[in-house]
Amino acid sequence: MINYPNGKKFQSDKSINYARRGMSLEEDLNDTNKYYLENDIAAIYKKPTPITVVNVEYKSRSTAKITEAYFQVPSTTDYNGIYKGKYLDFEAKETKSKTSLVLSIFHPHQLTHLRRVERYGGIGFVIIRFSELDQTFLVYASKLFSYIDNTAKKSIPYKWFLENGTMIPYRYQKKVDYLNEIDKYLLEEKQ
Amino acid sequence: MINYPNGKKFQSDKSINYARRGMSLEEDLNDTNKYYLENDIAAIYKKPTPITVVNVEYKSRSTAKITEAYFQVPSTTDYNGIYKGKYLDFEAKETKSKTSLVLSIFHPHQLTHLRRVERYGGIGFVIIRFSELDQTFLVYASKLFSYIDNTAKKSIPYKWFLENGTMIPYRYQKKVDYLNEIDKYLLEEKQ
Repeated sequence: MINYPNGKKFQSDKSINYARRGMSLEEDLNDTNKYYLENDIAAIYKKPTPITVVNVEYKSRSTAKITEAYFQVPSTTDYNGIYKGKYLDFEAKETKSKTSLVLSIFHPHQLTHLRRVERYGGIGFVIIRFSELDQTFLVYASKLFSYIDNTAKKSIPYKWFLENGTMIPYRYQKKVDYLNEIDKYLLEEKQ
Repeated sequence: MINYPNGKKFQSDKSINYARRGMSLEEDLNDTNKYYLENDIAAIYKKPTPITVVNVEYKSRSTAKITEAYFQVPSTTDYNGIYKGKYLDFEAKETKSKTSLVLSIFHPHQLTHLRRVERYGGIGFVIIRFSELDQTFLVYASKLFSYIDNTAKKSIPYKWFLENGTMIPYRYQKKVDYLNEIDKYLLEEKQ
């Protein structure tokens, strides 16, 4: 068991049955982004986890071992980058629930950041995986906020995703091919 | 006269001042990006340093102390974000030399990444400070590559920056106001 900075429990991949493949959404997105990069399609990266380094030990000239450091709460979403001249920015979350997504899964900073992205003309979205259902959705930030800003509820029902999100099918190489959905968005924007 | 927390004297003036503050380029850029953020101008962040975490100690439910970790070589530039619908991406470097900038100051990954940014329609650039000269330059990636790709030299002479870069004056709040230069770029792009 690993504890995340906010104290929430995080079960290691091996102890969870992540449906058919046993891969986490993060791993699938890493593979997808690697595919985009290697095929000269887009440059989208996961930001490193912010860590405050307190102490470093120098064993030799070339190696530095960090001996004391702490996780920080991220100020932004985890992923951003560029595709077809557009700024893309998103957060990815996974839930084991089959019925809803708790809104507290997002850090307030992340939501504030996504609102900025929208305001400045970028394409902001979230990728949500219902791991027990084997379903992954892309939801644009504007839709997410129109829900959040008009409810007192603390979660989003699964059904809402069927109506307001786009299901991203699993593929062999581009495991979570979200740019396929972004292409549709850009096409609509042109028209 | 105002004294900064670090005891350095700070001359209060709203006009342009090229004098050195004794602050690092990174600190100045952090302040500048904070200003852009707080004034709802742009969302540009320094990416956290990538660190491989090997061991974590749990003192309580909410605190996790990293006891073994190592620095990684970054895959991308340090800064990216969004401004006026545009994807911005840059690397910032400081040199004590008064005559040239060694090209090895850039990681090969960072240069590859900047080429991608250009190719995908983003605005890629570098911010170079000659700290002993109190001068900070913005150089677009296209100009940097036209130099690199046509030379066998291992450094760029200082004079080259005077001809191919834009000097960014030091300001009180927006210490390295690089978006002022980006505005000119966007204006030219429109015409």
